[in-house]
Amino acid sequence: MKITTKQAHFSSPLYLESGRILEPYTIAYETYGEINEDKSNVILVCHALSGSHHAAGTYEDEKKAGWWDGLIGEGKAVDTSKYFVICSNVLGSCFGTTGPMSDNYPSHQPFRLKFPVVTIKDMVRAQMHLLSHLGIYRLKAIIGGSMGGMQALQFAVDYPNLAEHIISMAATYATRPWTIAFNKVAVEAIRSDPRFEDGNYEKDAFKEDGLSGLAIGRIAGHISYLSPKSMDKKFDRNYVNTDGLFELFGRYEVERYMEYNTANFSRHFDPLSYLYIVKAINTFSLSRGYDSLHDAISRIKSNVHLFSFSSDYLFFPEEMEHIYKMMKRNEQSCSYIDVESDYGHDAFLVEIDKFEDDIISILGDENEK
Amino acid sequence: MKITTKQAHFSSPLYLESGRILEPYTIAYETYGEINEDKSNVILVCHALSGSHHAAGTYEDEKKAGWWDGLIGEGKAVDTSKYFVICSNVLGSCFGTTGPMSDNYPSHQPFRLKFPVVTIKDMVRAQMHLLSHLGIYRLKAIIGGSMGGMQALQFAVDYPNLAEHIISMAATYATRPWTIAFNKVAVEAIRSDPRFEDGNYEKDAFKEDGLSGLAIGRIAGHISYLSPKSMDKKFDRNYVNTDGLFELFGRYEVERYMEYNTANFSRHFDPLSYLYIVKAINTFSLSRGYDSLHDAISRIKSNVHLFSFSSDYLFFPEEMEHIYKMMKRNEQSCSYIDVESDYGHDAFLVEIDKFEDDIISILGDENEK
Repeated sequence: MKITTKQAHFSSPLYLESGRILEPYTIAYETYGEINEDKSNVILVCHALSGSHHAAGTYEDEKKAGWWDGLIGEGKAVDTSKYFVICSNVLGSCFGTTGPMSDNYPSHQPFRLKFPVVTIKDMVRAQMHLLSHLGIYRLKAIIGGSMGGMQALQFAVDYPNLAEHIISMAATYATRPWTIAFNKVAVEAIRSDPRFEDGNYEKDAFKEDGLSGLAIGRIAGHISYLSPKSMDKKFDRNYVNTDGLFELFGRYEVERYMEYNTANFSRHFDPLSYLYIVKAINTFSLSRGYDSLHDAISRIKSNVHLFSFSSDYLFFPEEMEHIYKMMKRNEQSCSYIDVESDYGHDAFLVEIDKFEDDIISILGDENEK
Repeated sequence: MKITTKQAHFSSPLYLESGRILEPYTIAYETYGEINEDKSNVILVCHALSGSHHAAGTYEDEKKAGWWDGLIGEGKAVDTSKYFVICSNVLGSCFGTTGPMSDNYPSHQPFRLKFPVVTIKDMVRAQMHLLSHLGIYRLKAIIGGSMGGMQALQFAVDYPNLAEHIISMAATYATRPWTIAFNKVAVEAIRSDPRFEDGNYEKDAFKEDGLSGLAIGRIAGHISYLSPKSMDKKFDRNYVNTDGLFELFGRYEVERYMEYNTANFSRHFDPLSYLYIVKAINTFSLSRGYDSLHDAISRIKSNVHLFSFSSDYLFFPEEMEHIYKMMKRNEQSCSYIDVESDYGHDAFLVEIDKFEDDIISILGDENEK
C-alpha cells in the first residue's frame, strides 16, 4: 500500500482550551482505503507522542512502514478493503500540522515559544474540523494507543454522537504524577541544553547532530515504554564489549540501545514540538471542563472498548479499569481487556497479535454474522 | 547524639577487581556507641548511592540528622547503647573517602577520569581494611539498603566468616537492565553538560550553581525511588499555580519537587563521583568471580535476612525472593519479608516503623530471651 500525505488548510479560527486562538492552521493527514457511499465505513486513528499521521503503508521512496502498519491494511484487523481510515498529525507536532516551528501568521517567523499551549481536547477539536472538511460527521470507530488513546476517550466525552466505537489502549483518564515526572526529564534536559537556545535555534539545526537534551529526555521515555521483563529479555546484562567491563564509559547492551535510538530520534523530532506535546499529555484530564470525572464519563454514548497491558509501567492497567468500572456502574456500554504482555507500554505497538482479534470482533458488522 | 567524622589513611595497596591498584587511599567513617570488651557488639552499616558515612546523629553545627537516624541511636532498633555501629563512606564517593576528585598520588592533581572503576566488591574490600585497621574481625551484623544492601550481600559471599547476620534491604543479586537504563539518564546528562568539561571542571565548580546534567539525571533517580502510588499521595495532579495551567513551563507539584530536590543535590554531590558510583551499581553481580550465582550464594555462612518493599520499582521484590529461594533450597539460614508499602524504593529510608521490630528481633541476643 503506497500512500501520500495530504494537508488541509483552515483559515477559520481554532478556539483553544487556553482561551487562545490559532488562525490559520494546517492539518497533515493520510487516508487508507475507500470511503463508501453512505460514509459509514470511516475509522479515525489517533497517534501517540512521537508518532505521526503516517500510520500505515509505505511512501514511494521509503521502506519503513507506518507505525501501526501491522494493524491497518488490506486483510488486516483494520481492513482497508472494508474501511476508510484517516490518521492526522496532532496539533503542535512537527510533521506537517501547525506546531511551534510553523509560521506565526502574518509573520514569516516561527511561533517558537509563542505557540499556544495545546491540549488533548484541542487536538481532538482540530480533528473535528478536519472531519467536517472531509464531509464526515459520523465514524465507525476511533482507535488510538497512549496519547492516541487519550484522544479517543476525549472524543467520546466531548462529541458523544460522533463514533459508534471508541477503542482506547494503554491510556488513562488523567495523567498521573508518575508520568509527569518521566516527562519532566525531557523538559529539563531540553531546556538546559545550550543548543536549544530558549527555543531560538535555527530550523533544521538538529538534522545532522540531534539535540542531546531531547535524546536524554527520550531515554527516560524509553524506560517508561518498556518494562523490567522486556528489558531482561531484550538485553539481559549483556555488555557491548566484555573486555571493557571496567571502563567507566563501557556500555551494557541496554545502554547502547538507549544511545542509538535516542540519538536517532533527536535528529528527526523537533524539541519544541516535544515540549508542547508533552505538555498536552501532562495536562490531560477527562474531567477538566466538566463537574467531575463521573460527569464527563456519563456523557459518553459510544461503545467504549478499553485495553490495558499487564506490564505497562507508564499507564497502569488500574487506570483503564477505573474508567471501565465507572461506565459499568453507569450501565454504559463498555468492555475492558487487560492484555497479558511483558512488553510494557509499547505492547500496543508491538504485540498486535494479542489484540487484533478483539479489534476485528469489535468492528465486525453484526449484520454479517 | 553529636558525632564527628574520622578518616583512616592507608598506605598499603588496595587491589581492585579491575586489576588496578589504589594506593594510598583514605576512608571516611563514623562510629556510634561504644565497643564492648570482646568486640562482639559491632554492627556495620552500608550506605546507598547518594548517602555517606553520616548515618546517624547530628554534627555540632548542623541540625540535619544522618540518613538512617530513625533506625540507629540510643533506644532505637539499632541501639547504640548496646551496639558499636560503624558506617564508612564508599570508595569513589565525594565525602572524604578516596574518589575521582582526590589527588592522584604522588601528583597533587585530582584523578578525574583517571580514577579506576570501582565495584561493590571493591567497596566491600576497602571496608575490610577499615575493619582490620580498627582491630575488628567479627561483626554482629551488616545492614544496608539499596547499594548498601548490595554491599551487605557481597560481604556475605566474599567473607563468609565475617558477620553473624546480614540484613539486606531493597537490593538485588545483580543489577537488571531496567535499573541500568535509569542510571543511563544520569550518565548521558552529566557527560553532555558542557560545564562537565569531560571531567575537567574546577573543584567546587558547582557549589553555587549545581551541574544541570546531574540534576537531570537525578530526576530519573527520584522517579525510580518513588512509586506511582507514593507520587499520587504526595503530589496528586496539583499545579503550582493553577492560573498558569496553560503556560508551557507552568509546573505540577511533582515537577516543582523534582526541580527543587535535584538542584539542591547537584550543588552537594560531585558529578564524577556520581558516574563512578553508578558504574559500581550497574556492574553489581554477586556471581562475578564465581562459577554461578548458586556457587556464590552457597558460600554464605551468615544468617541472611532479606527485606523487599512491595512497591519498589527499582529493585523488585522478586529479585530478593530469588535469593531467598536459592538459599532455602540450599538449606542455608535465610529469612525474607516483603514489606507492604506504597513508598517505593525509598521505603527503606522512610518507613522504618514497618521493619524496625524485625531488626530488633534479628539482633536480639538469644541469651536474653
